[in-house]
Amino acid sequence: MRTVGIVIFDNVEVLDLCGPFEVFSVARADGDDGDEQPLFEVLTIAERHAVVRCVGGLQVQPQAVLADHPPLDVLLVPGGIGTRKLLGNQKLLQWIAGQHRTTEITASVCTGALLLAEAGLLDGRRVTTHWSVTDWMRSRYTQVEVLENTRFVDEGKILTSAGISAGIDMSLYLVSRLHGPQVARWTARRMEYDHWPAQTAS
Amino acid sequence: MRTVGIVIFDNVEVLDLCGPFEVFSVARADGDDGDEQPLFEVLTIAERHAVVRCVGGLQVQPQAVLADHPPLDVLLVPGGIGTRKLLGNQKLLQWIAGQHRTTEITASVCTGALLLAEAGLLDGRRVTTHWSVTDWMRSRYTQVEVLENTRFVDEGKILTSAGISAGIDMSLYLVSRLHGPQVARWTARRMEYDHWPAQTAS
Repeated sequence: MRTVGIVIFDNVEVLDLCGPFEVFSVARADGDDGDEQPLFEVLTIAERHAVVRCVGGLQVQPQAVLADHPPLDVLLVPGGIGTRKLLGNQKLLQWIAGQHRTTEITASVCTGALLLAEAGLLDGRRVTTHWSVTDWMRSRYTQVEVLENTRFVDEGKILTSAGISAGIDMSLYLVSRLHGPQVARWTARRMEYDHWPAQTAS
Repeated sequence: MRTVGIVIFDNVEVLDLCGPFEVFSVARADGDDGDEQPLFEVLTIAERHAVVRCVGGLQVQPQAVLADHPPLDVLLVPGGIGTRKLLGNQKLLQWIAGQHRTTEITASVCTGALLLAEAGLLDGRRVTTHWSVTDWMRSRYTQVEVLENTRFVDEGKILTSAGISAGIDMSLYLVSRLHGPQVARWTARRMEYDHWPAQTAS
């Protein structure tokens, strides 16, 4: 079983966080409709043991903190307007860079890509982000190739997705990459995310 | 501005709750990309002032409780395996029935339909739910017409959606019904939920 750590912070976008949380926590072997054998453990991780206020007011109590969490196989960095305040947060950025040295996969949703860029992980790579920050990201991170109209980009160890709901598609793709398309299709079926089979067939 | 209340409880499914939360909290007038003029206030409401443990382990601190919350224009009941324990919870069921007397819209996602049925709100209506409980729901609530392969059903004051991710589609549809298709399309654009324009065009 792999451990997925999702960083959370004040003004994180709700679906950036919860779309991937849902996908990874629902993923099961093809045809397994039980709860006993999850393929991933999913953890929210914050700087402090305090409730995080997401965009719109959802309140999430983190399950772990930067200074104390199990080893992560997958690190996922969501976006939201709260990312802007974190661009100078060296403690968080160094934690991200440090985790990336040992993760199997490091991924961002939406403007979470800004944090990966700021942590120095995106130079020389093709990435995507929310449409509203594409130009700004290009001007700030000149060594990063920011793609538009792209649901997600797989650069091997690093994946980035477009805005908000695109994190669901990237996560299902990751389930497919790690466990095969049948497991991803079954996971999408459990979620009734019926767009997915058409996408994998293309 | 309308107030949307989302009931939460132990083992609520993450995306059942967070998909609609995202849609309603991101909805803005067409072209408005700011945060100042939301169209909906969204509140999570639980029985007690205590952290709710969702399916997969996400921990949500409710913003209000059954005994103390503002008047609700929209009541939304999500699903998840935790609904099974609530089928005999008269306090909650009576609260749902009581809220329904004054809401503009009462809606369920996934197996949240079981709670609306148990509260007596679905008799004589066409509804939908998660595919895994269709047969069970038909046998238990013989006065309810349970539809399959249906993303959501609009019965006027009551709406029900299929499983998990279908709550996003139902919520965007509700934004469209309440504020027009342009506002719904703009909301979907903000979320990069690019499936939506195709659905509204059909």
